[in-house]
Amino acid sequence: MELWLEQLHNLFAGKFSFQKEILEKYAKDAWLYARIPDGVFFPESKEDVIALMQFAHSKGIYVTARGGGRGYVGGAVPAKGGVVISFEKMNRIKEIHLEDAVAVVEPGVITGILQEKVKERGLFYPPDPASVMECTIGGNVATNAGGPRCLKYGVTRNYVLGLEVVLADGSITKVGGRTIKNKTGFDLTGLFVGSEGLLGLVTEITLRLIAKPPFRAGLSAYFEQMEEAISCINHVLSSGIMPSALEIADRFTLKCAREFTKEQIPLYDAHILLEVDGSEAAVNADIGFFENLLKTFSPKRLSKAFGEEECEKLWQTRRLFSMSLKASGLTKLNEDVTVPRSRLIDLINLGKDLQKEFNLTVACFGHAGDGNIHVNLMVDWLQEEKRKQAEEALNILFDSVLSWNGAITGEHGIGIAKLPWWQKAVSQQSRLLHEKIKRSLDPKGILNPGKFV
Amino acid sequence: MELWLEQLHNLFAGKFSFQKEILEKYAKDAWLYARIPDGVFFPESKEDVIALMQFAHSKGIYVTARGGGRGYVGGAVPAKGGVVISFEKMNRIKEIHLEDAVAVVEPGVITGILQEKVKERGLFYPPDPASVMECTIGGNVATNAGGPRCLKYGVTRNYVLGLEVVLADGSITKVGGRTIKNKTGFDLTGLFVGSEGLLGLVTEITLRLIAKPPFRAGLSAYFEQMEEAISCINHVLSSGIMPSALEIADRFTLKCAREFTKEQIPLYDAHILLEVDGSEAAVNADIGFFENLLKTFSPKRLSKAFGEEECEKLWQTRRLFSMSLKASGLTKLNEDVTVPRSRLIDLINLGKDLQKEFNLTVACFGHAGDGNIHVNLMVDWLQEEKRKQAEEALNILFDSVLSWNGAITGEHGIGIAKLPWWQKAVSQQSRLLHEKIKRSLDPKGILNPGKFV
Repeated sequence: MELWLEQLHNLFAGKFSFQKEILEKYAKDAWLYARIPDGVFFPESKEDVIALMQFAHSKGIYVTARGGGRGYVGGAVPAKGGVVISFEKMNRIKEIHLEDAVAVVEPGVITGILQEKVKERGLFYPPDPASVMECTIGGNVATNAGGPRCLKYGVTRNYVLGLEVVLADGSITKVGGRTIKNKTGFDLTGLFVGSEGLLGLVTEITLRLIAKPPFRAGLSAYFEQMEEAISCINHVLSSGIMPSALEIADRFTLKCAREFTKEQIPLYDAHILLEVDGSEAAVNADIGFFENLLKTFSPKRLSKAFGEEECEKLWQTRRLFSMSLKASGLTKLNEDVTVPRSRLIDLINLGKDLQKEFNLTVACFGHAGDGNIHVNLMVDWLQEEKRKQAEEALNILFDSVLSWNGAITGEHGIGIAKLPWWQKAVSQQSRLLHEKIKRSLDPKGILNPGKFV
Repeated sequence: MELWLEQLHNLFAGKFSFQKEILEKYAKDAWLYARIPDGVFFPESKEDVIALMQFAHSKGIYVTARGGGRGYVGGAVPAKGGVVISFEKMNRIKEIHLEDAVAVVEPGVITGILQEKVKERGLFYPPDPASVMECTIGGNVATNAGGPRCLKYGVTRNYVLGLEVVLADGSITKVGGRTIKNKTGFDLTGLFVGSEGLLGLVTEITLRLIAKPPFRAGLSAYFEQMEEAISCINHVLSSGIMPSALEIADRFTLKCAREFTKEQIPLYDAHILLEVDGSEAAVNADIGFFENLLKTFSPKRLSKAFGEEECEKLWQTRRLFSMSLKASGLTKLNEDVTVPRSRLIDLINLGKDLQKEFNLTVACFGHAGDGNIHVNLMVDWLQEEKRKQAEEALNILFDSVLSWNGAITGEHGIGIAKLPWWQKAVSQQSRLLHEKIKRSLDPKGILNPGKFV
C-alpha cells in the first residue's frame, strides 16, 4: 500500500476507504469501462473536500468526482486511478425558499427527491434526466443534465444561480449568487456547470425554481412512416406554441418496450409523445390545437392524457425505453447526438443505413424537439467482430453529425466514451482554449485526469 | 502623432481614423464618463479584426470593442485610451434558417432590425433591451443583454448557440455550434457572452430563434400603494402561469412619463404592466385569469390590450420611461440592481428612504418579475454637493442589495460605473478566478483595459 493512501485513511477516519468491494463499486458509471480507483472518499462537509484537495494538490494525487454514477460516457470513471470522491453523504437540502423560488442544496441530493420536496411547496425544478431517481444534483451540474422538459424549460445550467466550488488547490470560492439575473463579472457559474469535474468540485448549489404549472396534458401518437412523424414535429415547433416535451421513438424501441413491459404497445415506425403544461384552460385549448395538427398527419393511433396521473402513465413507458433496450440482452451504445432540426430526418435515415450496412440494430428515441436524438447501437459486445463493426458505425455516425453542424453529445458529455471523437468535434484553436482555462484553474491537472483536457 | 497610429492608418486605409470628431464620438456610451481614444477602427471582416489584433498584440496596444454605444456603465469607454473597434460596418445578417430556427449574424447588426427580419419569416428573437433600435447583437453579447421579455424567455446568453471569436493574440476560434443542446467541452460560448469585451472580440454569432407566438395580450394596472403592487406580483409569479413580461413603475416615473409624453397617464404609487403570449385561446384564458387576480388587489385603474397593436401601445409608454426621466433635466443614474424576490419591497422602500435622507429623487421601474429593478437616482450633476450625496446614496443602495443576496448589476454589467463596488460585490477568491481566466486568454491585458480585471 502506498504511503499517501494510509495517510488519507488516517486523516479521514471512517470517510476514506480502500476496501476491495468499495473500490470495485466506484470503478464505473452506467458506461462499459471500469478503472479501479486507489481509494474512495466520502466527504461530509466542504471542510472535508478542502482538506482532501489540499492534500491531493500538495502530493499530486488524482481526484475524480462522482455523483449518482448514472453517466453514460464514463465521465466519473477515474481513468488514471487516484481518489474517487463520492458526494453521497453531502445530501442535505439546506433551504427551499418559497418567495425567492430558490433552493440551496448539497451536491449529493438525488434530483428526484429535490423535485418531490419543492413540489410539496408548490414549486417546480424542471430538468428531468431519465435517471432522475438515481442521479444527483451535483452530477447534473457536472454534466449540465437535460431531459424531455428541457425543450420548454432549458437545461440544468439555466437553473443554477450560484455555486460554492473547491478548486484543485483546495481553495474555496462562491460564484454567481441568488438572483435570476446577475451581470457581476464573467459567467463562472455557467463555466463550472457541464465542466465534467475538470475545473473544480462543487460543494453547494443554489438553484432557481419556478412555480409549478397547475395543469398538464399529453398526446401519444403512432405513425406508419417516420417521415410523417418528423414533418409533424416540424409543424408543432413552428406553431409558436411551445410544448413542454416533444419526444420521438422508432419501431425497434417500441418493440423492445413492448417485450419488456408486456403491455400492448402498438408497433409502428414512429411514436410521438407531446406534452403541454400551464393553466388548465390554456392547456385544454393548446392540446386541442395539437390534436388537430397531429390528425392532419394521419396517425394510426392517437390518445390523450389529462392531468398528472394520466400523463405520468404515458411517461412511465417512455422512461422504460432505455431499460427495455438493455433488457434485449445486447449492449446498448447510447449516443446522444444533436443535429439542427432540418437534419432530423437525415439522422434517422442514417440509423437505418447503419443498421443495414453493419448488420446491427439501431434504436432511435429521444428529444426530437431540440434535435437531441439518442441513437442506440445494439451490439453483442462479446463478439469482437461485432464490436469492431459497431465502432466503425459510430465513426460514420459522428462524422455525419459533425458534417451537418450537429454535436456529438447533447446531454451526456465527452467522458471517456466520446474521447476518440473529441479532436474531430472541436477545432485545434478551441481545444487550446480549453487547455488554457484548465491550466489556469488546475495547473497540476489533478482533477478528473485522462479526459478531454 | 505616435508611430503605431500612423502604421495602423496606413495598414487599414479608410478603415482607421484619428480625426478629432470621430475620436470624440467614440469616447463614450450612454453613461457620463468619456475618454478620448487614440484611434477608431471600423473593420469590415474578421480578417480586419485578426490583422488589428495581431498588430495590437505585438505592440501592446489597448483595444476596446464597441457595439451600439448604448451601454449604461461605460463598458465601451476606452478607459486607458488606445483603439476603439466599432463593428458598425460588420452588420450583415448572413443567414436566417427557417427549419433550423437559427440566425447567423455579424456583431454590428442592430437588434431591432434582426427582430424585424426574423419576424417576417414567422420567427422570434426574444431578448428586448430598451435600446433595441440602436443597440447591436455584438453589444448584447458583450453585456448579455436582457429586457422585459427575459422573464419568460431568458437573456441573450440563452440564445447564443455559437460564436466566432478573435482572441487577444489575433488567433481566431469557433466555440459552440448550431444546436440547441451541446455538451462538447466547456461552455466557452457562455463564458464569452457577458464578458464585456475583456476576453475576445466576437466576429460572428449563431443565434437560436423560436417560432413567433401567434397572439399576445396585456394588462395595465395602477395601484394606490406600492405594497399592493408587489404583493400582486408575488401572486402572479406563484400562479404557475408565466407571463411574458411583468413590469413595475413608481409614481415619479409615471409623473415624468406624463410630462414628457403629454398623455393622461394616471398618477398612483405603482403601475404594473403584465403581458401573456401564446395561442389566442390560451392567451385569452390566461389574461382573464390574471385580470381576476389583479382585481383582488383593488387596482385604481385596469385596462386590457389584445393583439399586437394594442399591446405595442402599452409598451410605447413603458419604453419612454427612460427617455422621460432624462427629459426631467436631471442626470439619471440608472442602477440595474437585482434582488431575490422577497426583497423587492425592501428595495422599493430603500429608494423612498434614500429620497428623504439625501433630498434627491429616486425613480424605480423595471423587470419586477425577475427582481431586476432599475433604481434611478435623479441628480443635478453640476452641483458638487448633490453629486457627493448621490454617491453616498449609491453606497447605501449597493451595500443593502448585497446584504440581501442581490447583485449590483442584473443587465448593464460592471463597466466603469460599477467598478467602485466590484470588490464588495465579488469575493477575493472569485476575483482571483476572474484574473486567472483573463490572464490565460489575454496575457498582456490589452482587451478593454481598466475594467474589472
